Amino acid sequence: MRLYIGNINGNFAELNSEESQHFSKVLRGKIGQEIYVTDGLGKLAKGKVSQINSKSIEVELSEIQENFEQRPYQIHVAIAPTKNMERIEFFMEKSVEIGIDEITFLKTFHSERKNINLERCQKIVHSAVKQSLKASVPKINDLIKFSDFLKFNHPENKMIAHCDSNFERKEFKKIIKPVTDYLILIGPEGDFSKEEIQLAEQNGFIGISLGNQRLRTETAALNSVFGLNWMNN
Amino acid sequence: MRLYIGNINGNFAELNSEESQHFSKVLRGKIGQEIYVTDGLGKLAKGKVSQINSKSIEVELSEIQENFEQRPYQIHVAIAPTKNMERIEFFMEKSVEIGIDEITFLKTFHSERKNINLERCQKIVHSAVKQSLKASVPKINDLIKFSDFLKFNHPENKMIAHCDSNFERKEFKKIIKPVTDYLILIGPEGDFSKEEIQLAEQNGFIGISLGNQRLRTETAALNSVFGLNWMNN
Repeated sequence: MRLYIGNINGNFAELNSEESQHFSKVLRGKIGQEIYVTDGLGKLAKGKVSQINSKSIEVELSEIQENFEQRPYQIHVAIAPTKNMERIEFFMEKSVEIGIDEITFLKTFHSERKNINLERCQKIVHSAVKQSLKASVPKINDLIKFSDFLKFNHPENKMIAHCDSNFERKEFKKIIKPVTDYLILIGPEGDFSKEEIQLAEQNGFIGISLGNQRLRTETAALNSVFGLNWMNN
Repeated sequence: MRLYIGNINGNFAELNSEESQHFSKVLRGKIGQEIYVTDGLGKLAKGKVSQINSKSIEVELSEIQENFEQRPYQIHVAIAPTKNMERIEFFMEKSVEIGIDEITFLKTFHSERKNINLERCQKIVHSAVKQSLKASVPKINDLIKFSDFLKFNHPENKMIAHCDSNFERKEFKKIIKPVTDYLILIGPEGDFSKEEIQLAEQNGFIGISLGNQRLRTETAALNSVFGLNWMNN
């Protein structure tokens, strides 16, 4: 049974134009058909399509689960997008399947990519949410300057993964605490600059190493997301 | 400094035609240039290019490390390739970066893909080995019928990951023992058939679940490889 993203009000859900088109035009769905609906905020509902309009679809819900498969921790990865966008798209898809809550794109000193297509990123995330039957849609934040991002309010467990041996780096696996919120900064192909690492440390970020291996940007990000979920599950 | 794959004999290494072309034609390397060479079997050597021939390159080695970053366990994933080959290619690349020793492609009852381009797979693996500075080249085995593969000699820790709740499944994370050899079977998009699961169990494979999540084939495979390396490191 397929999952759609929509608004849930009481015992009814409404699918937006794009989701409705997909249901009625692409999949030739009919009134009475059973589907899953999520609001993307934790609710997973089951229901029957009760009305098909030109730009929306109404669903009468029979079961609603609140906080569906909610994890007691949040993972936020802030990452400098790679030159080859496919690599980041794959990271997004795999992270959503395994479990991630927020992704921010960073503009860093060594970044080769200075822009991203946020709408396309959101589509990839929505598609992965639906495919892997999730009830929470991770938040995707547009590119932001590294130094500006540091000024935000961040969780206590904030880390910067880098390869610069001039700085002290703790071993990721050894320092992460279970069941809490995490923020991990992942640098571009040329790593974070010394100034960026210093600035992050001044803002309370802990320098970490993700192991001895030479990992690509998206592999480092995946390793931290898979690792945190592995440890906490 | 770049890594090349070649034959190592005593204090000399010879790069094959393809690697030599890459060095001299693509990167315009010269005699005297320092490079890394691996034999793909655990040796990592450093040396200077001493001779450039039309189809081979000789390297005089100054340092040779045996068993470079050798892990005390082996991971073998046998997987039914996905319809979209890009997904499997991504799995191969990420697995090599994180650590894998052998990949076998399985022809299963629900397999949509009945052939693979083994040479292309090997190229992807070589490229990932070189990019991530590994000294061991994982073995890639051509498509084999599921029932034939089961007959081989396999390590004690052999598992079949599937989603069929008619069979008992152990939780992967809870049953895996540290520092040993592992073989994990990962099914196609439509899962293994009942007969295949039964046959695997008869051959001593343990049915496992990789968690509550609905994971794509390549994500399930990645989850097991990341998880095993995370646990053992």
